[in-house]
Amino acid sequence: MGVSEAVSNRGRVPLRAPGDHRGISSRDVAREAGLSQSTVSRALRGDARVTEQTRERVLAAARRLGYTPNALGRNLSQRSTRTIGMVVTEISNPFYPNLIAPLHDELAELGYNMALFTESAAHSFDTLFDRGIDGAVLTTSTLDGTVPREFLRRGLPFTFLTRVVDGIPADSVTVDNALGASLMAARVARFGHRRIGAIFGPADTSTGRDRERGFRAGLAAAGVELDDEAVDYGPYTVDAGRGAMDSILQAPNPPTAVVCFNDLVAIGALNAAHAAGLRVPEDISITGWDDLPMASWEIVQLTTVRQSMHEMARAAARLTVERVEGRAGPEPRHVLFDPELILRSTLGPPRA
Amino acid sequence: MGVSEAVSNRGRVPLRAPGDHRGISSRDVAREAGLSQSTVSRALRGDARVTEQTRERVLAAARRLGYTPNALGRNLSQRSTRTIGMVVTEISNPFYPNLIAPLHDELAELGYNMALFTESAAHSFDTLFDRGIDGAVLTTSTLDGTVPREFLRRGLPFTFLTRVVDGIPADSVTVDNALGASLMAARVARFGHRRIGAIFGPADTSTGRDRERGFRAGLAAAGVELDDEAVDYGPYTVDAGRGAMDSILQAPNPPTAVVCFNDLVAIGALNAAHAAGLRVPEDISITGWDDLPMASWEIVQLTTVRQSMHEMARAAARLTVERVEGRAGPEPRHVLFDPELILRSTLGPPRA
Repeated sequence: MGVSEAVSNRGRVPLRAPGDHRGISSRDVAREAGLSQSTVSRALRGDARVTEQTRERVLAAARRLGYTPNALGRNLSQRSTRTIGMVVTEISNPFYPNLIAPLHDELAELGYNMALFTESAAHSFDTLFDRGIDGAVLTTSTLDGTVPREFLRRGLPFTFLTRVVDGIPADSVTVDNALGASLMAARVARFGHRRIGAIFGPADTSTGRDRERGFRAGLAAAGVELDDEAVDYGPYTVDAGRGAMDSILQAPNPPTAVVCFNDLVAIGALNAAHAAGLRVPEDISITGWDDLPMASWEIVQLTTVRQSMHEMARAAARLTVERVEGRAGPEPRHVLFDPELILRSTLGPPRA
Repeated sequence: MGVSEAVSNRGRVPLRAPGDHRGISSRDVAREAGLSQSTVSRALRGDARVTEQTRERVLAAARRLGYTPNALGRNLSQRSTRTIGMVVTEISNPFYPNLIAPLHDELAELGYNMALFTESAAHSFDTLFDRGIDGAVLTTSTLDGTVPREFLRRGLPFTFLTRVVDGIPADSVTVDNALGASLMAARVARFGHRRIGAIFGPADTSTGRDRERGFRAGLAAAGVELDDEAVDYGPYTVDAGRGAMDSILQAPNPPTAVVCFNDLVAIGALNAAHAAGLRVPEDISITGWDDLPMASWEIVQLTTVRQSMHEMARAAARLTVERVEGRAGPEPRHVLFDPELILRSTLGPPRA
């Protein structure tokens, strides 16, 4: 298949159990490739001064000899930094602290530091690799997979957290997104709603796609249709939820329930309803996804789908460290968490 | 004065303009001190293997020769990591992202990485120094000053952000806390409140202390007394605000306004009022401090004191980098921001 083939041809040393290459050194690889040892070292650590062609030559030689620098393609001569990178979209999004804090704590218990990087600051991406990290946890990958492919190319271990990219072989920790969305669909339908809107996540993310798929399937199973006039897509932010809900409420016959696929989006929708003078859930029901701490505030009381962010982040830390330390087998591992419906007060029956 | 004397005796090389020691090297200091050059290097970088006595001897020799490693006591031989540490209490507190994001971005523009450290993980504090950072921004210092003293001892530049510690000479970026609190006192009094409660911050922080001082003075100037039965102190968290407000509301004659000195605390108080079936501001007024993004949500609409966290964080990044790069003069610099009263809907007149 296109994607994973391309990747494995472009820079990834095949996965092997640690110890496979005992006795084989980068010096042997250099001899086999007919290159200097320093060029081989540079190639294996993804140094930009090495051409793609040379890198290919080194990797081919390494494969022939069965040489795997560390368990996942890292250069043995590269000193461990005992630092794991955490890549988020933007630190100011209140979603991330709920992942960052437990990840940081679990890494600390495992004897690692956490370095935080944002995708927004292009600068930090170069430094992410330049500074040296042993591995990373990726929380923001879009389906095009630019960032994880760069990790693969450099042979740096990483774990997908909350989101994945199809066809990229890597450890992952996710919640069962399709299942959670179908449970919410069933609950909304059971309350008797028949005009139902949705604010889906970004279509270029696995969470956006899988939650939409599960939600549409769940509604169909319950014999209810989604009101296509009341469907929107957007990033997982309060502002996006506010904007989408403002539009949805302008329809001549707005829905009686709007299902959001992120708590921040739902809070934006609550703000829009509040600004429009609507009572929740009497005039309109609104639901979220995540169960952030703020979802349980009395002034919010959001009905939502709980994903165990704390446990998921800790699992991602452990997977990454195991991989970095060569204590993981060659196959990618996938940890799937169960979603849980949390019923509070923003979802109720529609007005008769 | 006790504190700063003790510090300058215990490990801080006197501040000098960069360039003062041109021509004087750590080799000269070693000769002057009668120690090996590697011991001198270790002493200047705060290596734990060097005894306090030896460190004293090195610093005395450095002082005699007018040798200042960098502008603020850093060892010239210590390689720059181009990393600035950011120390927060706990990353999951939604207050911090509003400082972390702009600090990260400003540092990135200045060519520096940001490494995040929490006080809660004791582990990371050792690694903070072991890993090597060029300097730090401290946001969590309590008045006992343990952490900043450790920075001084090791000769690492740092900037206080939002909070300071008396008697510790360092750059700082703060808002005028006493002024902001007195403005809020005046506004609450002008609405006609006469039974006024307060949830102050931790008494062992400069923000807790200075806001309390300004608030009490402001009320006194307006001829209103604080209801001592309705005064509490606590950390800057939603939970603390919830708990304090629950207690305050149990009084036989509860106040008509409760002034909180943090938005999260105010949101906890709003939750408590909501749980008690009270309307805000009709039954009770509640105010905050910070103007976090959530303060302007329609479902919150919190009257608060705005401190420009974004600009403050960026200023702290610049001060720290200037200090690290030897572009700051010897005297500590203090940047003071103006507070601004933001009137929304949680403060109104008391019921007649």
